[in-house]
Amino acid sequence: MAVSAGRTLGELRQRKPLVHQITNYVVMNETANATLAIGALPVMAHAGEEVEEMVQLASALVLNIGTLSAPWIEAMLLAGKAAGARGIPVVLDPVGAGATRFRTETAKRILAEVDVAVLRGNPGEVATLVGVAAEVRGVESIGTAGEAGELARAAATNLGLVASVTGPVDHVSDGSRVLRVTNGHRLLAAVTGTGCMSSALTGCFVAVKPQQPLEAAAEALGAFGVAGEDAAEGARGPGSFHVALYDALWNLDPATLDARVRIEEA
Amino acid sequence: MAVSAGRTLGELRQRKPLVHQITNYVVMNETANATLAIGALPVMAHAGEEVEEMVQLASALVLNIGTLSAPWIEAMLLAGKAAGARGIPVVLDPVGAGATRFRTETAKRILAEVDVAVLRGNPGEVATLVGVAAEVRGVESIGTAGEAGELARAAATNLGLVASVTGPVDHVSDGSRVLRVTNGHRLLAAVTGTGCMSSALTGCFVAVKPQQPLEAAAEALGAFGVAGEDAAEGARGPGSFHVALYDALWNLDPATLDARVRIEEA
Amino acid sequence: MAVSAGRTLGELRQRKPLVHQITNYVVMNETANATLAIGALPVMAHAGEEVEEMVQLASALVLNIGTLSAPWIEAMLLAGKAAGARGIPVVLDPVGAGATRFRTETAKRILAEVDVAVLRGNPGEVATLVGVAAEVRGVESIGTAGEAGELARAAATNLGLVASVTGPVDHVSDGSRVLRVTNGHRLLAAVTGTGCMSSALTGCFVAVKPQQPLEAAAEALGAFGVAGEDAAEGARGPGSFHVALYDALWNLDPATLDARVRIEEA
Repeated sequence: MAVSAGRTLGELRQRKPLVHQITNYVVMNETANATLAIGALPVMAHAGEEVEEMVQLASALVLNIGTLSAPWIEAMLLAGKAAGARGIPVVLDPVGAGATRFRTETAKRILAEVDVAVLRGNPGEVATLVGVAAEVRGVESIGTAGEAGELARAAATNLGLVASVTGPVDHVSDGSRVLRVTNGHRLLAAVTGTGCMSSALTGCFVAVKPQQPLEAAAEALGAFGVAGEDAAEGARGPGSFHVALYDALWNLDPATLDARVRIEEA
Repeated sequence: MAVSAGRTLGELRQRKPLVHQITNYVVMNETANATLAIGALPVMAHAGEEVEEMVQLASALVLNIGTLSAPWIEAMLLAGKAAGARGIPVVLDPVGAGATRFRTETAKRILAEVDVAVLRGNPGEVATLVGVAAEVRGVESIGTAGEAGELARAAATNLGLVASVTGPVDHVSDGSRVLRVTNGHRLLAAVTGTGCMSSALTGCFVAVKPQQPLEAAAEALGAFGVAGEDAAEGARGPGSFHVALYDALWNLDPATLDARVRIEEA
Repeated sequence: MAVSAGRTLGELRQRKPLVHQITNYVVMNETANATLAIGALPVMAHAGEEVEEMVQLASALVLNIGTLSAPWIEAMLLAGKAAGARGIPVVLDPVGAGATRFRTETAKRILAEVDVAVLRGNPGEVATLVGVAAEVRGVESIGTAGEAGELARAAATNLGLVASVTGPVDHVSDGSRVLRVTNGHRLLAAVTGTGCMSSALTGCFVAVKPQQPLEAAAEALGAFGVAGEDAAEGARGPGSFHVALYDALWNLDPATLDARVRIEEA
């Protein structure tokens, strides 16, 4: 199936998929608002008592390990397994993998026990999970030994999923193809949680076309990058940019989006 | 006592009541800022070790089950009972009741064990709690079998409280009277946590007139709706609307508010 | 070493120190964004399994007790002790000390067990911790018996640290000197978490000059106050002010900052 961020966005706005998110404390409000702004419905629930029931109402599940603790890990595993049993696609954002053993091991445990459709991370996080050397500072990725496109392809192949490696240029791979997405703006790196937002939006797009996770993941990044470009116009810094980002997501036009999204085979 | 959002707001700004909120992770910052913007003081505290002591400093308690887990439920019950013993009014926001058994049962347990003054929810949540058929998607209410005014009246009667059922048109009832509030703007549904904000503001208004919870709850919704109307002017989407909403709450004028609030007997 | 907020900010932007924050749910996004906007890197991590490892990657640790519970206290102590063992400066924000025994005792316990470099609080919180009479409402400080400069000096002397007491005028003391900072704007009090942001920024500045915590703490408040003054221009209320605050932090110019910061010996 061809890549068309516009068509997927149009369908998303028709269907308004519910996207269950078990994410970190820092960005819950922001990923919920990004989900609403793109046209989907967010639901946050993390209690072991309810995650299996909640995820069955959803069209996608997003797991984000940004502010981990043991009960949240158990809930992520419960929700992830319930999603797998129902064929609901799961997106994993391994925030800070490589920074501490706890995060690295948790990300690996989720990858081992849950059928993850898309792994969305920065180069350092993804490199850590496939054993490639990487430099990480806290939750920031500074650089990796390899090229990002090859890193995405290696992660996809080794982990058996779609790897979505974001940075100034994004690379999404299913192990055979690599799609390069060149939309975006440098101010995205000046606002906390924009990586987490891109994972949430990946969940929204994968919810609409679960059979094409490669295309959906790339389209989500393209749409988010276009919104970033729009938000940067007139922004006076990260505060006004952040606000304009929600406006820009809301105002994305399915009819013109494909002409602006820059996705190409790498 | 007559309905006068302007008079209550004026008194609120004089008294600056402290409103203790045990709410969900997604909206804590937002409800705290809405509380400050209207002119009250928020305090967030959820530890079992301190909630009974904290609530006694407050003029109202707001309980919101949006991101539940067991320790938080225990804290809500402790705080709610301590509030009841001191005659401090309690507002309950049963976020997601009907979506999972855990949420439905928790909301019912709080209603059973705590003297709730105002139940503020969407039609699906409130219908669930009074046993009326409702369609719920995650934490979004899609529709109910009955009419919202009758739903509010039934909830008030059955549960022995003031029911505040919000939507495009809000209905507030004490079981005998039903007040209809028609202020607001559709962009309120495009920002996460605006329902939770309306519950926080209900707490602020009830703190000022605890003996008139029906009027206070309707006035809070009227004031919030007027702020939403103001915020929508010039908004380019949900991001700029959200920011303008705090400005609008801050700039509400007690002297002119009554002329703009639309509250009528249903 | 002389006070120079401009020079410290310039160095901060060169070095981009990582600042580990164990803070409250209400302000996590806001303090992370303030940290990014000033030019440092935030990382939030609170699990006992990882805080000792994470803090060793950082150049400063900020502990904030705004929404306490037992597991978070244990993590703060673990992280604080690990920081102390490595000479990493620790900033403590005792949010709500004086409001409940739990908060007062927790703040005292952290002060007893962790080598705190800077205590950043409002007059009521700091007075509580040094046994001076104070009036507190929830997490708001209403007034104290003594003068703020003397309070800062007493806290610094009694607790053996730098005390940074903020309000309309800020006072920072190491027990011998008292620096008075008169930058700022009244709208800072209308947005939740600005006190927590000032603690986070204190962590950013102390990370750059850990040997001069007195100067670093005063410079951080001066820089934040200048940003508040800039943000107030054109603000229509707390919402637009809040957004402009991140823009203003981002746009602070090291070359002109010293001419605008008002820090003097008290």
